[in-house]
Amino acid sequence: MSTSVLRGSKSSELPLDRHRQILEIAARVICEKSYEGASIHDIAQACGLTKGGLYHHIRSKEHLLVEIMRYGMDMFEERVTHRTRVIDNPLERLRATMESNIRLVTDRRTKEITIILHEHNTLTGDGRAEINRRKKSYVRFLEDAFAEASERQLIRPVHTKVAAFSFLGTVLWTYKWFRSDGEISQDQLVAEMVDQFFGGLVVAA
Amino acid sequence: MSTSVLRGSKSSELPLDRHRQILEIAARVICEKSYEGASIHDIAQACGLTKGGLYHHIRSKEHLLVEIMRYGMDMFEERVTHRTRVIDNPLERLRATMESNIRLVTDRRTKEITIILHEHNTLTGDGRAEINRRKKSYVRFLEDAFAEASERQLIRPVHTKVAAFSFLGTVLWTYKWFRSDGEISQDQLVAEMVDQFFGGLVVAA
Repeated sequence: MSTSVLRGSKSSELPLDRHRQILEIAARVICEKSYEGASIHDIAQACGLTKGGLYHHIRSKEHLLVEIMRYGMDMFEERVTHRTRVIDNPLERLRATMESNIRLVTDRRTKEITIILHEHNTLTGDGRAEINRRKKSYVRFLEDAFAEASERQLIRPVHTKVAAFSFLGTVLWTYKWFRSDGEISQDQLVAEMVDQFFGGLVVAA
Repeated sequence: MSTSVLRGSKSSELPLDRHRQILEIAARVICEKSYEGASIHDIAQACGLTKGGLYHHIRSKEHLLVEIMRYGMDMFEERVTHRTRVIDNPLERLRATMESNIRLVTDRRTKEITIILHEHNTLTGDGRAEINRRKKSYVRFLEDAFAEASERQLIRPVHTKVAAFSFLGTVLWTYKWFRSDGEISQDQLVAEMVDQFFGGLVVAA
């Protein structure tokens, strides 16, 4: 399904790659200035294009936002659930999902796409419905894994919805505070977070 | 420290109470339309005021945002840390802090103020510095409690920064998904979330 990415080699750049690059740059501008604050002119300028040049790649500002979110969901599914849904043991599936989701959210290149996916509720119509359907499908994926892990007595009985959203809150909040050049490495973050979430904190009496 | 709130009795309304009401209404409008998307006219209209009437209460749109955030931090400190910092046992202190913070974030009246506090980085200058200082002080409060709980062997050794931000992510993400008229009650949410966070999930082998 994936593309051959030729980043950095301008002359042989594929149209698809250029399109992704525009989405990533637009995401950065929208994160900086907010969706309402970022004009098409700002986005075009950041892409090194004229307004007309940008409109060659996008239909409208609203449609650009749909495309950024769709790209975010594609990337998320490719790097997270498509890889982990094949893991038979539900507890290992959840651990691997947390790990790959943390990595996605804290990667410098993909962080802004994630922020837009979770902080911009500006979408309307079909675009909104599609994105919400895909987000809900992830919540269901988590809930099912928690239910299965509990049935198999790998974890104790939990309210699966609360467990799924605690998982998401723990993972997604990282884009707000984690700095890839900070005191904690990404590997350390992953190890600590997974361990604390599944293992808990309280010492057995 | 608190005021005598006479909400609903218009004739005897205190100026302070009216001011808070304006901040709450403005927070709702900003949550709906975003800070950039909400005009002073929109906010005035929602408050039942003319633009001139609103400017009687506020200095500028930027200052209004500072005031909403300051109000949010005041409310947070009054309802959360001022009550729990006196608890001597650090594990009980953390549990009580999580409980009261979840309640604050999921209360219909205070939710929008919380959203603005955590999703709008538009502030500049002194206002921004003040809010950031107060947010950091909460992170330190949590880190200190985790360190103390670990020293007293009430919890196992943890990376306190990761623990503090996992705590925050779990708690603050609730404003994104929890509906007070949904299938889970606030009491149930608090009990489940505190239990899962501190107790962990994995069954001891």
